[in-house]
Amino acid sequence: MQKVFNMHDLVKFSPETLKYNEAGLVPCIAQDVESGEILMMAWMNAESVAKTLETGRVTYWSRSRQSFWIKGESSGHVQELVELRVDCDRDALLAMVRQTGPACHTNRRSCFYTAIRDGEEHEIMTPIS
Amino acid sequence: MQKVFNMHDLVKFSPETLKYNEAGLVPCIAQDVESGEILMMAWMNAESVAKTLETGRVTYWSRSRQSFWIKGESSGHVQELVELRVDCDRDALLAMVRQTGPACHTNRRSCFYTAIRDGEEHEIMTPIS
Repeated sequence: MQKVFNMHDLVKFSPETLKYNEAGLVPCIAQDVESGEILMMAWMNAESVAKTLETGRVTYWSRSRQSFWIKGESSGHVQELVELRVDCDRDALLAMVRQTGPACHTNRRSCFYTAIRDGEEHEIMTPIS
Repeated sequence: MQKVFNMHDLVKFSPETLKYNEAGLVPCIAQDVESGEILMMAWMNAESVAKTLETGRVTYWSRSRQSFWIKGESSGHVQELVELRVDCDRDALLAMVRQTGPACHTNRRSCFYTAIRDGEEHEIMTPIS
């Protein structure tokens, strides 16, 4: 008997189906699921994508240290994964997260704290004290 | 006389101060300034950063076509720049935009229309008709 597929059939997700760059990495944007604020952008390899989904703790790949980077492991500023999304080209990820404390290593809520206004750089966020 | 600087002195922004990858590109996230929705992620070189700021029309660098990509130039689905932001490492950009119509080439509002839920891919957005 022929198996009937319909548009509601679900595809099992596999990290191997993403398109990685020549270093085996894909960019991942972290967005605060409550405020909608963009917190940061970092990189994942296939294994860190898998770990993120398995553990529910956002796990990047540190390009400088060349090792897994479980966000908040040392600082306590963890990112709890609410939902991972894939873009149309499968070469970028969006992680909807619950962020504890600041996401940025400068102690600011977001890494995107510098705005360009009239050709000048403005700091629009202060470190969380 | 010695010039006195204080913490409120503003730095003039120059695209050359960003950190580009080996292809001379930096990722740019486009966020809908009203809804907070992440629309897409694409790439810019120094010249497209400059063009984006000069024209107020978000202008990426198309890696496939190796040419400037003025978003919406052919489709009409333009991105009007409200504010460009730089991250702490100066290797990622966030463009706050007013998006006309869908941002995605699939005619969906956002490119991030595939969510991973319980290990399966779910389409969470339909094309704008």
